[in-house]
Amino acid sequence: MKANEMIDKDFIYVSKDDKIVDVSIKMEKSKRFAIPVVNDDLKLIGWVTSFDITRGLRENKKSISEIMYQKEEVYYLHENDPARLAVIETSKHKLVSVPVLDENEVVVGVIRSFDIVNTLSSLYEVKVSKLYETMENELRGVSWEELMEASAILHRKTTGKRTSPNDYEKNIKSSTFGEAIWATGGLEKFFAGLITVGELVIARKVGRSKK
Amino acid sequence: MKANEMIDKDFIYVSKDDKIVDVSIKMEKSKRFAIPVVNDDLKLIGWVTSFDITRGLRENKKSISEIMYQKEEVYYLHENDPARLAVIETSKHKLVSVPVLDENEVVVGVIRSFDIVNTLSSLYEVKVSKLYETMENELRGVSWEELMEASAILHRKTTGKRTSPNDYEKNIKSSTFGEAIWATGGLEKFFAGLITVGELVIARKVGRSKK
Repeated sequence: MKANEMIDKDFIYVSKDDKIVDVSIKMEKSKRFAIPVVNDDLKLIGWVTSFDITRGLRENKKSISEIMYQKEEVYYLHENDPARLAVIETSKHKLVSVPVLDENEVVVGVIRSFDIVNTLSSLYEVKVSKLYETMENELRGVSWEELMEASAILHRKTTGKRTSPNDYEKNIKSSTFGEAIWATGGLEKFFAGLITVGELVIARKVGRSKK
Repeated sequence: MKANEMIDKDFIYVSKDDKIVDVSIKMEKSKRFAIPVVNDDLKLIGWVTSFDITRGLRENKKSISEIMYQKEEVYYLHENDPARLAVIETSKHKLVSVPVLDENEVVVGVIRSFDIVNTLSSLYEVKVSKLYETMENELRGVSWEELMEASAILHRKTTGKRTSPNDYEKNIKSSTFGEAIWATGGLEKFFAGLITVGELVIARKVGRSKK
């Protein structure tokens, strides 16, 4: 995934000669906490956050050029950079958003921390049953019923609680990958459970074929 | 994971009688775009964002009570709520942060979108080799070398490119879960690849044991 696939295309931008008062209204209306400052060619020349605006209003400054960060101080990405970079830098530097430039340094969008949360959370919302469907497709000769039976057996072994294959099926149809990794205690543990289910159905399949 | 495990404990809060000018300085210094308004018992009574502050400064308002959101308008969580709720609501409503309350409605912290990105991205940063270690541990009787051999075989089958088990090992030691799911085209596809590796090593193990 590239940076430009995660951008907010409805971003707003301002010029260095814009009045701070006008920009404050623009930012409030569009609910943007940080915005790029561009020249006439839409190339990035600076960056302004709500904190610069409040300071500017308080200190009675007039134009954006008096309060903006210069381009050298701005963290930005290029459109073909991996989207992961936005995640890592946002997280490391606690950025509310990051501008994304094309090869001519023209701003093509802004990645906001919401956009990142959106992208990451869509992964979390994958239903656990989707992963079981993947297992069913990949492990040829293994049926959905066998997967549910093996999972119910394993569930009893690990938790001590009896579950029917039907109840197990209902459960994975309503629960998400995000819930499952948080419930099992992390990605590796969740994954370990799935491997064990896979191994169990394969062992049972091999057992059957030997009869 | 519970909401209180994801909070910023160094959150700042203000009182409804605080002056807007003072709060603006406090928010700039601490780099908080949105903060809770509390009463003397530290119970939540309102919420203020940088946009309310810029509007307040521009319109020459004096105290926080003139610009704040009332509690009824604020989205908040309780400390024992699932952390997932913060992710879902932040994403849905494009919130920059969400206050977290205890059972007495006292503010115990604030979950910022950065904190969410941090938590979610730590999952993304899990090395792919960790998942292989999980497979090695779970699939008893299967060695690390067999896993690398099976993966190298599968890699050649799917991409047409020859890879040695050693190169494959180097690759998974440097690449992360986040890179892998983005490279393979999603969680299900990445997972399908791992299942196929698991099936292949088990098939080879069963083959050996029959000799």
